[in-house]
Amino acid sequence: MLEIIRDTLESIKSVPPLRLKSAQAHLDSLTKPPGSLGLLEDLAKKYAAIRDTDHLSIDRKLVIIFAADHGVTEEGISAYPAEVTPQMVQNFLDGGAAINVLARQQNAEVLVVDIGVNHRFSPHPDLLDRKIAFGTRNLAKEPAMTRAEAEESITIGIQIATELTDKGVDLLATGEMGIGNTTASSAIFSVLSGLPASQVTGRGTGIDDKTLQKKISVIQQALERHTPDPGDPIDILAKVGGFEIGGIIGLLLGAAAKSIPVVIDGLIASAGASLAIGLNPSVKDYIFPSHRSVEPGQEVFFNLIQAPPLFDLKMRLGEGTGAVLAFSLIEAAVKIYSEMATFQSAGIADRAET
Amino acid sequence: MLEIIRDTLESIKSVPPLRLKSAQAHLDSLTKPPGSLGLLEDLAKKYAAIRDTDHLSIDRKLVIIFAADHGVTEEGISAYPAEVTPQMVQNFLDGGAAINVLARQQNAEVLVVDIGVNHRFSPHPDLLDRKIAFGTRNLAKEPAMTRAEAEESITIGIQIATELTDKGVDLLATGEMGIGNTTASSAIFSVLSGLPASQVTGRGTGIDDKTLQKKISVIQQALERHTPDPGDPIDILAKVGGFEIGGIIGLLLGAAAKSIPVVIDGLIASAGASLAIGLNPSVKDYIFPSHRSVEPGQEVFFNLIQAPPLFDLKMRLGEGTGAVLAFSLIEAAVKIYSEMATFQSAGIADRAET
Repeated sequence: MLEIIRDTLESIKSVPPLRLKSAQAHLDSLTKPPGSLGLLEDLAKKYAAIRDTDHLSIDRKLVIIFAADHGVTEEGISAYPAEVTPQMVQNFLDGGAAINVLARQQNAEVLVVDIGVNHRFSPHPDLLDRKIAFGTRNLAKEPAMTRAEAEESITIGIQIATELTDKGVDLLATGEMGIGNTTASSAIFSVLSGLPASQVTGRGTGIDDKTLQKKISVIQQALERHTPDPGDPIDILAKVGGFEIGGIIGLLLGAAAKSIPVVIDGLIASAGASLAIGLNPSVKDYIFPSHRSVEPGQEVFFNLIQAPPLFDLKMRLGEGTGAVLAFSLIEAAVKIYSEMATFQSAGIADRAET
Repeated sequence: MLEIIRDTLESIKSVPPLRLKSAQAHLDSLTKPPGSLGLLEDLAKKYAAIRDTDHLSIDRKLVIIFAADHGVTEEGISAYPAEVTPQMVQNFLDGGAAINVLARQQNAEVLVVDIGVNHRFSPHPDLLDRKIAFGTRNLAKEPAMTRAEAEESITIGIQIATELTDKGVDLLATGEMGIGNTTASSAIFSVLSGLPASQVTGRGTGIDDKTLQKKISVIQQALERHTPDPGDPIDILAKVGGFEIGGIIGLLLGAAAKSIPVVIDGLIASAGASLAIGLNPSVKDYIFPSHRSVEPGQEVFFNLIQAPPLFDLKMRLGEGTGAVLAFSLIEAAVKIYSEMATFQSAGIADRAET
């Protein structure tokens, strides 16, 4: 394993449990019945524990969209042609995609990382060129990438997390773009759960029944051919993953090592998060799940992290859209923690029964 | 029935179905797989249909907190003493409550309406004095209010909605404060559903098992004593409701008559909304449910409106907190509708299969 990955994994620690306790004590002093803000209180506690401080604030938010192509698209497993990956990257840079609209609403920056798109882009201030190759290989026929490429994709994510946190980012979100990447993600969830592909594979951007059957059989055959090792996340990533999934893994590791929370999006981000947790279970402390995707494979992730999604809006777009919507809830939680009056300061009677 | 209520009920029409269709066609032209933004697309369509326009925007948002006291608190059915109602109203005016924090985050104004609090407040720019009485009567012993008072509370809500919409408010939310009002709301849901009080009554601000049993038996006995007519929403409001619930009913009617959407909060707002729908079923077209409360009675409302909650954060605070959190999702939907690029404008390939 590359030294940067090993060093990062070693520096990730669980969040301090005492901070969770002191944060709950503060929340209970605020002018509301104890626990009455439900999951918002859990979000505030988790944020306090990650940052290890009582003075919560969120000044700079950023969503990172890792984009890459997938050789497996030549099997005809997607509703859209592979050219849509670079076209949508251009749309992100032009500000016209859903993620741009939602990021503007949330005052969040958008950074696009070309980690393996089958296109050369002109330079753009919001685009990082970290291209490993012009897409992965077709996992139906051969491993999607070499182990070295898998480690390179993780390294890129770690380096980006490190640079961003050094620049004062408080809250990150992961997004992705890559026609074919629900196939890779479902394959990952099949390996991790031991479930057959048919139980963890969905319709992605909206394929018909026949294409869904093809997608399932492509995944099943790839797993039989390459036999990824369920105990080796990097082997899984290399054999059936994607460069953008490697980038997400690295980002989660790098952010956890720097004590920065990351909100993850739907299926693809959940696949990356599950592999990151496989590399170091403490990563889980730094991850905020956002929405429940309509893709069935994501359930494997929720079982692993043991934290509920914040909403279930039947979304299946990706790009980081669900994660950025969750920014609003996390900021609400942080503001509740920081700005509400206490029973004492407001001169309000506490519970009758105590 | 008072003329203003009758006239308002007559002027409420269903939203135009053609607008729902044209809004969906526009959403399908945007650079995302059709339907991939799930409920966000439904929110945008509903907003477009309510405002009956293709040019969606939200410029002015406001949450109205109706506050009132409840005579039934003398039965000892709440975790907090009745004095907390005026103390929390003061907290709202001082800006220290959860609803103030969340409204600031969402750039929404807060308006507090004293529609029946057991206290005289000093004048304040954010407070409307519309006091009907110093609280309702104890519904365990007599009807909570007269039919005339019930109609007065609805009238106050209608008038406030009319004034606000004439001032250019685009989006409203309902909030409430009133120690004892989950008792009134559960009683309303028991009447509307025909279910026994035990199945629609929860712990409110956090009562213990013994107090919960007391609360259930108070509701059951009140219903047996006063026998509210399930087909007459005003009779239900008068016998087991509350002034703030009447205010919410009126606000929903007045806003629907003016084609203004209202986001409702948890249990108490859902009880008011259910009675408003009973008065005119088309009101339902103008209501955005927000969160699923932990209170069991709210299920009666969701069955009635046939629209899902936007999130389930295990909240049970009231004040309008869940409704104001939902502002963010509705604004996201409106911005998606207004700001995203189309496939054509962005030069992106459409679906392979079509």
